[in-house]
Amino acid sequence: MPANAFYAQSGGVTAVINASAAGVIETARRHRSKIGKVFAGRDGIIGALTEDLIDTDRESASAITALTRTPGGAFGSCRYKLKGLDEHRAQYERLIDVFRAHDIGYFFYNGGNDSADTCLKVSQLSSALGYPLVCVHIPKTVDNDLAGTDNCPGFGSVAKYVATSMREAAFDVASMARTSTTVFVLEVMGRHAGWITAAVGLADDDEHPIPLLLLFPEIAFDEAKFLARVDAMVKTRGYCCIGVSEGLRDADGKFLSESGLRDSFGHAQLGGVGELIAKLTREKLGHKYHFALADYLQRSARHIASKTDLAQAYAVGRAGVRAALDGDNAVMISIVRSSDVPYRWSVGRVPLTRVANREHMVPRGFISRDGFGITAKARAYLQPLIEGEDPPPFRRGLPRFVRLKNIAVVKQLPPFTI
Amino acid sequence: MPANAFYAQSGGVTAVINASAAGVIETARRHRSKIGKVFAGRDGIIGALTEDLIDTDRESASAITALTRTPGGAFGSCRYKLKGLDEHRAQYERLIDVFRAHDIGYFFYNGGNDSADTCLKVSQLSSALGYPLVCVHIPKTVDNDLAGTDNCPGFGSVAKYVATSMREAAFDVASMARTSTTVFVLEVMGRHAGWITAAVGLADDDEHPIPLLLLFPEIAFDEAKFLARVDAMVKTRGYCCIGVSEGLRDADGKFLSESGLRDSFGHAQLGGVGELIAKLTREKLGHKYHFALADYLQRSARHIASKTDLAQAYAVGRAGVRAALDGDNAVMISIVRSSDVPYRWSVGRVPLTRVANREHMVPRGFISRDGFGITAKARAYLQPLIEGEDPPPFRRGLPRFVRLKNIAVVKQLPPFTI
Repeated sequence: MPANAFYAQSGGVTAVINASAAGVIETARRHRSKIGKVFAGRDGIIGALTEDLIDTDRESASAITALTRTPGGAFGSCRYKLKGLDEHRAQYERLIDVFRAHDIGYFFYNGGNDSADTCLKVSQLSSALGYPLVCVHIPKTVDNDLAGTDNCPGFGSVAKYVATSMREAAFDVASMARTSTTVFVLEVMGRHAGWITAAVGLADDDEHPIPLLLLFPEIAFDEAKFLARVDAMVKTRGYCCIGVSEGLRDADGKFLSESGLRDSFGHAQLGGVGELIAKLTREKLGHKYHFALADYLQRSARHIASKTDLAQAYAVGRAGVRAALDGDNAVMISIVRSSDVPYRWSVGRVPLTRVANREHMVPRGFISRDGFGITAKARAYLQPLIEGEDPPPFRRGLPRFVRLKNIAVVKQLPPFTI
Repeated sequence: MPANAFYAQSGGVTAVINASAAGVIETARRHRSKIGKVFAGRDGIIGALTEDLIDTDRESASAITALTRTPGGAFGSCRYKLKGLDEHRAQYERLIDVFRAHDIGYFFYNGGNDSADTCLKVSQLSSALGYPLVCVHIPKTVDNDLAGTDNCPGFGSVAKYVATSMREAAFDVASMARTSTTVFVLEVMGRHAGWITAAVGLADDDEHPIPLLLLFPEIAFDEAKFLARVDAMVKTRGYCCIGVSEGLRDADGKFLSESGLRDSFGHAQLGGVGELIAKLTREKLGHKYHFALADYLQRSARHIASKTDLAQAYAVGRAGVRAALDGDNAVMISIVRSSDVPYRWSVGRVPLTRVANREHMVPRGFISRDGFGITAKARAYLQPLIEGEDPPPFRRGLPRFVRLKNIAVVKQLPPFTI
């Protein structure tokens, strides 16, 4: 009997993470002689710890294919970070116990920075315990901040969403600015890295010129300089659109909108900087403002997903299985770009030691000298990632998504409290 | 020489108001013997008052057709309300002066409640002054609150956007709820009438069941009852999604989020009730929340416009010209529904006296008895309005919109200060 595989989704979900799941499951199904069943963790790694495994073999081929058109995490994801091997040794050992009980020889972890680190540690412990396990990390993050890959599945679709939304809103604001709103602010995700903020910049092009300012988390907020730019734009072009990162910081490195809340990873829960920036322009310059907070809408907007992003999300899932079949342990599947125009990419494999606990920030050369825009280099990088449309089927006017049966595997072990 | 026509966009713009403009201009061009040029007001009625007229004849046929794929107001709109004939007599007389100077015999006003009232008054004054003018109101409002018509162009596309967005976000929240967000709030437009709030309810159907609560402006907010429902949903279904109107009020009729600001029509500027509701669930129930504020994104989202809405927006523009050619003065073009399933509609004409200064609220029978959902009647009404997709062409990954040349007509009159 071939070994089974375990697949889990981790951290914030995306419009295309289920395409990676489909890539894993469909590819595994084509290699029945080497991979038995694919078990998915219910609610991510928590499913492994609690032995709550979903038997993906109970899902039809068409249901698995339909994952490519369904946002969110079909098996559930979680924000549960496995800490150091010493601190969380019992958890790591439990994982191996569960894997052993279910003949799991492949571990596919579909997530961002934190899960790359977990994937590496699981690989190290299984090796130390002499349990044969091939661990492959499948990249996913809207933040696009994973090291070792040209870009991250999930990002391209958010990029397309925020650029589309800003362009559309700018056409609205432009037509009302004479007597109504002159400042429009769109707050976007990206706690530390300003990739999504940069993508807002694509809204403005030769054919659709928009008076647009970007506020990056990488650039300390300079109130006086910012207000002067807003004022000049409103005076010369009638209105001003602003894309601001939730992670905008002041010169002391403090988040402008620190709410005091923290998520279970210990990260500050942000939100509200868009409103703050909008109100600032009114208070200091007297402008009438509106602001939008796209929040989860931006990362779940499957209806406007990037076709390139979808293809890459599927490809990293498929390539993950192929790497595992090659016995390539403790690697992450990467996306390798060989050309901007025409865009050419392939998948590669990078050792997890080169990925875990690093962050891939927006290079300074991607941000214009004044700090409020993107450069031609940034455009060349971003442009191919938003190319192409692949909308889901619509039924009765709305996108039609799939909900899996998610049938649990019978437990073999005593309960475990996490 | 046939008389010319004047067309203006008024109030908040929509994803499809330019389709109405295309309907007017293309139809007028097909009746050259009866309608000379179509002049558009730059920034709405302000363009007429300041004699800032755009010569739409300078735009190519393909540019006018491209209006059907372009959100916002292509000639500019404004929030400038003409008050009573006594109070604003000089303005009304100036309008007639400008119309006379440019041989304008047709007045097409594309707007909501306030502009229906203005259109009626212009018609009354021109008649009193003996100036021959056919005044036709072309309906437009995302709020869907115009009397005398089954529905309003602009609404169907917002409805499609908010229902799509809530469905997508719900798939996201469902997958994260075990360890992260359990309450998700989407704040939508609709100051007095809860049509857009009702449309959020379409996100939830048999195939995509979502634990969803709606907070209508028509239903006084009952905090205790609301919190009990949220808590029950989170306990039984793991999470809770909430669609809330910006115009939610308490039992005393006071807006929950009155910001104190007023727009130039004297309406309160709202915003922030979504955050307020979300924070309430955390404070009182301890839930982790996220909230989104779609703001202008919802009314400019041409990329996900309803095909039905687009067709109707175009049709009311075309029918407006036909009514004018028939000499039908002081009327609004209406949409008349003859059947829900299959959906059948046509355009009609209603006297402006039956439209102006009335509001078409969501009937109580459309809201479920508990006040938190929609009934089968509401679904039957809403469903056809969101049917069909007609995305704009995409170029380089983003929707491609048109910008007109908007060339001004030479002024004939002395300046006028508004």
